[in-house]
Amino acid sequence: MVNHPQAQAVGAERRLLELGLTLPPPPTPFGAYVEATRTGNLVFFSGMLPVVDRKPRYIGRVGGALTTEDGRNAAETATLSALAAARDFLGSLDRVVRIVKLGVYVATEGDFRDHPKVADGASEMLLSVFGEEKLSGRVVLGVASLPLGVPIELELVLEVED
Amino acid sequence: MVNHPQAQAVGAERRLLELGLTLPPPPTPFGAYVEATRTGNLVFFSGMLPVVDRKPRYIGRVGGALTTEDGRNAAETATLSALAAARDFLGSLDRVVRIVKLGVYVATEGDFRDHPKVADGASEMLLSVFGEEKLSGRVVLGVASLPLGVPIELELVLEVED
Amino acid sequence: MVNHPQAQAVGAERRLLELGLTLPPPPTPFGAYVEATRTGNLVFFSGMLPVVDRKPRYIGRVGGALTTEDGRNAAETATLSALAAARDFLGSLDRVVRIVKLGVYVATEGDFRDHPKVADGASEMLLSVFGEEKLSGRVVLGVASLPLGVPIELELVLEVED
Repeated sequence: MVNHPQAQAVGAERRLLELGLTLPPPPTPFGAYVEATRTGNLVFFSGMLPVVDRKPRYIGRVGGALTTEDGRNAAETATLSALAAARDFLGSLDRVVRIVKLGVYVATEGDFRDHPKVADGASEMLLSVFGEEKLSGRVVLGVASLPLGVPIELELVLEVED
Repeated sequence: MVNHPQAQAVGAERRLLELGLTLPPPPTPFGAYVEATRTGNLVFFSGMLPVVDRKPRYIGRVGGALTTEDGRNAAETATLSALAAARDFLGSLDRVVRIVKLGVYVATEGDFRDHPKVADGASEMLLSVFGEEKLSGRVVLGVASLPLGVPIELELVLEVED
Repeated sequence: MVNHPQAQAVGAERRLLELGLTLPPPPTPFGAYVEATRTGNLVFFSGMLPVVDRKPRYIGRVGGALTTEDGRNAAETATLSALAAARDFLGSLDRVVRIVKLGVYVATEGDFRDHPKVADGASEMLLSVFGEEKLSGRVVLGVASLPLGVPIELELVLEVED
């Protein structure tokens, strides 16, 4: 994509189309909670899993049964869920002003150290969709286990339009 | 409870009474930090443990020495601590506009996957006290260990009245 | 330091000098993210590691290869990185109104329970630099692993001046 002023004005919804990405149905809660909460211009989302239609797409830990590449793919799947949840809550991804926080929690086994490569599965997709100027910081942790046995959970806080 | 307009107006303090819940003394810090910080209309609380009078009520990991039911009970105990901390900081739970974030961190062992059932111990109590309209999203992780050896830690961010 | 009104007015940059603390070069990203994002008066930082010039200063888990004291030292090193990132983003640490959130994530092994002692390495340094009136709550977790194999990661949210 040529980097001229108009390109910067291309919204996230159009970028999604250009990238050929199709969002899954938005996730639904596995308990007594909601998928997103707005306070002022911030929206805090529930943890997003690599789950489609309530079924885990990946099971296991990175560094154990799963490779770094598996983890990266799971991070991409969870990101699509997060985008679906955001569109469902906001009506359109074009209402996202910036990503405020991205947490990437990776279930790991043994002495796995390549968390950043796994997390880039999420970050790079968000970069493609929202552009560099809306990119956030990132908190990446290796955890002992995740709900349903999945290898990845994402935490997302977005700043949205009035 | 009959779901008529007045019922929705019942505050959290009155619901607490109706539920017969008694709050423990508010938690005190285990180090160089405070229990809550306000910025604008948001209050960020310190991690809340299933600890009363500085003594852990539960020790161990869920999926190991502790069952899912133990984990759920520990989540309820930690929620009572969180409510005590919130009342102590705010003066009254009626000043809570909405829950913005609930993090539930469960110390797990082995291939435990029922994190949502454990986390519902916290979510369902918050639902009972604050009502559905103030319920938040939820981030649930299985962690390797927690301070003092407890199985549960809660993270809470609240939006409060001016 | 004598606790008179003027002392409270001493800024964080001057306290840093008085403490003889020298900040390392600010950290740079290990992937597709930025080190800090501002929304309103809040700044959310990326996870801060005990890494200087992209090289880990500590490797291993507390309760395993590393002692509580090692963990505490690693927390201090990560705090210096966080302060360097904050100064780099804000221009001066004197623009910090208060710390809103401090997350301390400790890679642990076995039945380690002294997380608060490790986390105090970060909290006490922040207390020395910013003073008690700007101190935040704290969320401390024991995690399975961290990026690059380090034992500590810090999460920081700051409220800053207009």
